[in-house]
Amino acid sequence: MAEQKQEGITVKKSENFDEWYIQSIVKSGLVDYSSVSGCLVFKPSGYAIWEIIQKNTDAEFKKIGIQNVYFPIFIPERLLKKEKEHVKGFSPEVAWVTHAGDSKLEERLAVRPTSETIMYESYSKWIRSWRDLPLRLNQWNNVVRWEFKHPIPLLRTREFLWNEGHTVFATKEEAEAERDEILEIYKKITEEYLALPGIIGRKTDAEKFAGAVATYSIEHLLPDGKAVQGPDFHNDGQNFSKVFDINFLDKGGKGQYAWQNTWAISTREIGVMAATHGDDKGLVLPPRVAPIQIVIIPIIFKDVNKKEVLSKAKKIKISLEESGFRVFLDVREEYTAGWKFNEWELKGVPLRLEIGPKDIEKKQVVLVRRDNSEKLMIKETAVVKKVLEMLDSIQENMYKKAKKFLSDNISIVKTYEELKNILKNKKGFIKASWCGDHHCENQVKLETGATIRVIPFEKEKATKCVYCNKAGKEVVYFAKAY
Amino acid sequence: MAEQKQEGITVKKSENFDEWYIQSIVKSGLVDYSSVSGCLVFKPSGYAIWEIIQKNTDAEFKKIGIQNVYFPIFIPERLLKKEKEHVKGFSPEVAWVTHAGDSKLEERLAVRPTSETIMYESYSKWIRSWRDLPLRLNQWNNVVRWEFKHPIPLLRTREFLWNEGHTVFATKEEAEAERDEILEIYKKITEEYLALPGIIGRKTDAEKFAGAVATYSIEHLLPDGKAVQGPDFHNDGQNFSKVFDINFLDKGGKGQYAWQNTWAISTREIGVMAATHGDDKGLVLPPRVAPIQIVIIPIIFKDVNKKEVLSKAKKIKISLEESGFRVFLDVREEYTAGWKFNEWELKGVPLRLEIGPKDIEKKQVVLVRRDNSEKLMIKETAVVKKVLEMLDSIQENMYKKAKKFLSDNISIVKTYEELKNILKNKKGFIKASWCGDHHCENQVKLETGATIRVIPFEKEKATKCVYCNKAGKEVVYFAKAY
Repeated sequence: MAEQKQEGITVKKSENFDEWYIQSIVKSGLVDYSSVSGCLVFKPSGYAIWEIIQKNTDAEFKKIGIQNVYFPIFIPERLLKKEKEHVKGFSPEVAWVTHAGDSKLEERLAVRPTSETIMYESYSKWIRSWRDLPLRLNQWNNVVRWEFKHPIPLLRTREFLWNEGHTVFATKEEAEAERDEILEIYKKITEEYLALPGIIGRKTDAEKFAGAVATYSIEHLLPDGKAVQGPDFHNDGQNFSKVFDINFLDKGGKGQYAWQNTWAISTREIGVMAATHGDDKGLVLPPRVAPIQIVIIPIIFKDVNKKEVLSKAKKIKISLEESGFRVFLDVREEYTAGWKFNEWELKGVPLRLEIGPKDIEKKQVVLVRRDNSEKLMIKETAVVKKVLEMLDSIQENMYKKAKKFLSDNISIVKTYEELKNILKNKKGFIKASWCGDHHCENQVKLETGATIRVIPFEKEKATKCVYCNKAGKEVVYFAKAY
Repeated sequence: MAEQKQEGITVKKSENFDEWYIQSIVKSGLVDYSSVSGCLVFKPSGYAIWEIIQKNTDAEFKKIGIQNVYFPIFIPERLLKKEKEHVKGFSPEVAWVTHAGDSKLEERLAVRPTSETIMYESYSKWIRSWRDLPLRLNQWNNVVRWEFKHPIPLLRTREFLWNEGHTVFATKEEAEAERDEILEIYKKITEEYLALPGIIGRKTDAEKFAGAVATYSIEHLLPDGKAVQGPDFHNDGQNFSKVFDINFLDKGGKGQYAWQNTWAISTREIGVMAATHGDDKGLVLPPRVAPIQIVIIPIIFKDVNKKEVLSKAKKIKISLEESGFRVFLDVREEYTAGWKFNEWELKGVPLRLEIGPKDIEKKQVVLVRRDNSEKLMIKETAVVKKVLEMLDSIQENMYKKAKKFLSDNISIVKTYEELKNILKNKKGFIKASWCGDHHCENQVKLETGATIRVIPFEKEKATKCVYCNKAGKEVVYFAKAY
């Protein structure tokens, strides 16, 4: 038994975060490296988490009338080049198909880094009159951005999975009103499912999406004090509609250019989730996105009461499944109970249920929480009720803990010296006033490496600009970022 | 009202099938052409059908223990070339990525035409002992096969969506036992959901998958008498495991090569479905895959009783939705009822429910079946029950009709002359005996264009080979194919 070697995590999260992160997502079986540099394999538990995110996000999209579509993965070069800012932003990282079989293609095809240009050519054909609007389409797909920066699994990979919503409205007001509707969905998924808090607000012009009028995002903070951009929403105004000729006849018969938005949530969130919640034993998965919420481990001593224990374990499994929980009963005989405990802790399963001969005598089971190792004896009859309570409590506790970490790592500064000091020592978000001038934003970036991550929706009165000391316009969050 | 021009189908299915097919899938809004030659856009109703197929197929996969994963879309050239038959089959139609941004890649990357080679490199790493088997993984993704033959939307496109199952077993027997399990799922989805019959059996060696030991498929027949390969299952034996070094220590500690299968169902089925069931008015969608099963059309005359009619229509919509039906209430005021009838017929919605002032008086609604135009007055109180009955009846009727067409188009021949005559006139499947020699199979192909589509599971006693007149080994189905 247990002759196989068990590979736990060999470094501490607090001592070597970078190495810990890689070990926690690879050794737990979430993802693996592939033979294509910068591209990942999503193993069953990693992909199952994405399926849960996707299913729940998609249900919210459908509630507000979004329809799914699928556009080709290839974008002819001439199309990609149509919107100038857009191509400038993406062309350095485009993977180009130049040949099919032995033939050279007449025109190079971009593997989509994002689908504005291929979709909007169709939109231009489809939209003729006000009757065709709003058009609110979305696709769940794979995109490729061949970044040359050091890839980091899930956080910066060359191929990733996401949703890309591309909507078209008759008026500026309608387009702008969609922002809160979509960000509310992303907020729900990140906070209530992934247990990830974030700071919501607008990006500066320097940091916005290539081709957008304004970009909004949920900005997360990783345990190493670096920020990472989460789900985002881009208001494109008429930038693309003018270039792609997306116009319509309004009710008065007058030609108008349409107003557009795009928005996305990606598999990066799985990386943020793993990094945020994990501990030295491995992953800690929030119950609402955990592919397995409860693992049942029968404790068997030298085949005494084996049949009885297994039969009871199966009964409990069935009753939990009937109550809607995702349960795995680990009956493998080739591993010891202790080996299994370690493995499921590494994988981050929120709740472990142990049952052995003594428990059967006492008509009880043992429940162990992954998030805080709390161990409880529960009457057999109370299992379903108690499991529900505990999963809710774990979900809540994980969010609170992450939220506290975020709050504890927001520093408020008045001077540039303070800002630089924090970047050297504590890191995290730095709240400071900014005059709104790109020069100041850029100087801070050049001198410290920190950028303005977000201009928060929650407004505060600005004081003097942290860089130039002139009158501040906005209170913003600076940070170093992935 | 209705000033917009309405584009119905301008040709008859019986007179010009090819043109009818294109018009029925494009004008109905299922798919559209894109600016990438041979690649399609799946519009909302087309993609929604794929979602329904995917959801139901995936649920069946999960029941038998299949887990989903996601592997990179790119395959390094050296990997693709590892299995000789495999690369010979696919390399003529591979789309090659040669550049990223402005840099030439050191090694060309294939856009996956299928994922054996990229997956099996990981499998080789993951599989060490009998404990790691069986490994039954699947992915739902997009693949690219840059065929140079004339593309036909959905039936032969350069990018398509599919599932690809890739499973690994310790023994030949276990691997072979998976065949019926998977084909049973595909049979259920094609017959019970898409209302598509087919002939199930084995492919000849000449027609099998590049790299497989044996290929099995469900072979459909299109209305023009040409066959098309549906979902398939490939038994790969140890062909790939030997090349990719997928071996394991068995319980006795001895090294063994594993046994593998792969299997797939693709968006091609949507094309087969559209082609099979449609009529001169447009698509006819089987209720179980129709994104909208019932369209409710309020009949409003000059605003008389408008409020009452709309309120009743909404009530009916809610009660049908609560019973689990997919319903659309068409309240658009800019189109006449007649215009709407035509549009929803074109789109193939199985059931139309009309309600006007007179119906309200009589406490009834009007139901119109898409498949046979039957019109019924139904008591308001019986709507849910009657809708359920009618949708079941439509689903059954569609399958029966398609099954009859298939049966009516299987000709049994004894001689080569008969075979050639049928190919000239009637087309369809031709059942004939075959000696098993590739020479005969190939001569028939060269001389008539027909290939052996399938060696059916249902065995019959063979007579003389239709080509060489020697003793026949198998009764097989010949046909011209897409």
